[in-house]
Amino acid sequence: MRNLTVAIMGLGLIGGSVAKRLSYEGISVIGYDIDEQTAKNALESGAIGEILPPQEAVAKADVTILSMYPQGAIDFINNYKDYFKKGSILTDVVGIKTPIATLCDSIEANFVYVGGHPMAGKEVCGFDNASEYLFNGANYIVIPSSKASESQILIIEDMVRILGAGTITRTTPQQHDEIIAYTSQLPHVIAVSMCDTPLLIRHNHFTGGSFEDVTRVAKVNAELWAQLFMDNKDKLLAVTEDFEKSISKIKEALKNSDTQTLKEIFTKVKKDKELVESENNKGKS
Amino acid sequence: MRNLTVAIMGLGLIGGSVAKRLSYEGISVIGYDIDEQTAKNALESGAIGEILPPQEAVAKADVTILSMYPQGAIDFINNYKDYFKKGSILTDVVGIKTPIATLCDSIEANFVYVGGHPMAGKEVCGFDNASEYLFNGANYIVIPSSKASESQILIIEDMVRILGAGTITRTTPQQHDEIIAYTSQLPHVIAVSMCDTPLLIRHNHFTGGSFEDVTRVAKVNAELWAQLFMDNKDKLLAVTEDFEKSISKIKEALKNSDTQTLKEIFTKVKKDKELVESENNKGKS
Repeated sequence: MRNLTVAIMGLGLIGGSVAKRLSYEGISVIGYDIDEQTAKNALESGAIGEILPPQEAVAKADVTILSMYPQGAIDFINNYKDYFKKGSILTDVVGIKTPIATLCDSIEANFVYVGGHPMAGKEVCGFDNASEYLFNGANYIVIPSSKASESQILIIEDMVRILGAGTITRTTPQQHDEIIAYTSQLPHVIAVSMCDTPLLIRHNHFTGGSFEDVTRVAKVNAELWAQLFMDNKDKLLAVTEDFEKSISKIKEALKNSDTQTLKEIFTKVKKDKELVESENNKGKS
Repeated sequence: MRNLTVAIMGLGLIGGSVAKRLSYEGISVIGYDIDEQTAKNALESGAIGEILPPQEAVAKADVTILSMYPQGAIDFINNYKDYFKKGSILTDVVGIKTPIATLCDSIEANFVYVGGHPMAGKEVCGFDNASEYLFNGANYIVIPSSKASESQILIIEDMVRILGAGTITRTTPQQHDEIIAYTSQLPHVIAVSMCDTPLLIRHNHFTGGSFEDVTRVAKVNAELWAQLFMDNKDKLLAVTEDFEKSISKIKEALKNSDTQTLKEIFTKVKKDKELVESENNKGKS
């Protein structure tokens, strides 16, 4: 991996962070952003070694990384699929996988698709907020297409390790989207819904840590998250309804003054959460 | 305030943290805990200057602080109300106010009740986790009874400032409980419900910051939170149903592939959240 040339298309928070880390690690990085000034800033800061337009970048790169909105990635592949270097690998950091994977499976191309999804981010966006440490210890999901060879998958997993990720897990596009509906999209539904009330402003001086945490990601990028939600709407609806059922159990217990059931739910959840945390700590030691 | 003697009944995470800070600030602190070893540890660490049983502690203290479960506080007042020093102030750190305030209003006693609720905590409990810095910058709610004089309220607010709290807000018991249903109890309903599913364990290696944040407080103390929820069940049910309506708006937009509505919700919430954050930052500068 370290001798390969990487092209990063899109230099926002995530793409910029990937660029910074890979360049910092001595890897040759080509960059591009639809905002010319962003690309110049990336070049000046040393996050990328060269700016090239997409058709030239993908022709030169051994690994191309798409770091853009879901629809942008689809459009990019459609526009530039014929320019990719023969035998190169296409990966991405897009939060939804089925549409891109389906497209890549359906076309003849010189590249092989091995999708990626870093479980890391910030409430702010843009290259100015990018950091070479963004992925340190983060979970990272790798989603190879059926055409990818083991050695091609290993190249991407090697890159992910260079980015600093903690646990790396392989899965399919469909499973990825099912899982992510629960672990990433539902928390955003919750944060937004928690703030979608006049109580937010009225009770501002009465909040504590639990409120701040639950609502931290409420300031979503509207365009990006509307795309992510719509592209995964059936799976997101399913986990949201599952969550609503769990809420209903607590409501029922409250309505019936059923303290015992409430305590049973709390005790079971605490046990499960502790199990998960101890597994995670094992993974880190 | 600094010349008064304070008695802290209950030396867990919150009571222990209050004790540490007040002693650190040179205030004379009497302590008691139903667990004898906890009280001894507090004495040895210097968090309290003296251990006294409740009837002696409340007879000597100018300010008594109840730091215990809601039902424990009710029982304490019923058991020891006749022992309090004449003209002393009773405060507490209990997360629900109407039951205690109603009791205090209904009895003849030597003390006056000025309730308190620090919006601070940890996912762990007990004296060993107590910290003199726990309340630094935290919101703190003060809930005076109708019998409290302005000078008595100011004594408690002075103590709250000594604890290091940021914004101090006065309100009534009923308003407190209505607000807290939204700002504290609902986030706990959400965290628990988010974890009350087999998906929690199945998808453990696919989580990111948004998931960790939303579920941080899921490991609730079952006995304590069952009491807090039950004592406030009507108000908690009301805000939970309000939250469910906000979720339903997102679900409807998804079902109808109504990207425009989704973006409108996101944009409105982002604006409101930014307004609230800028107000909070103003309060800190």
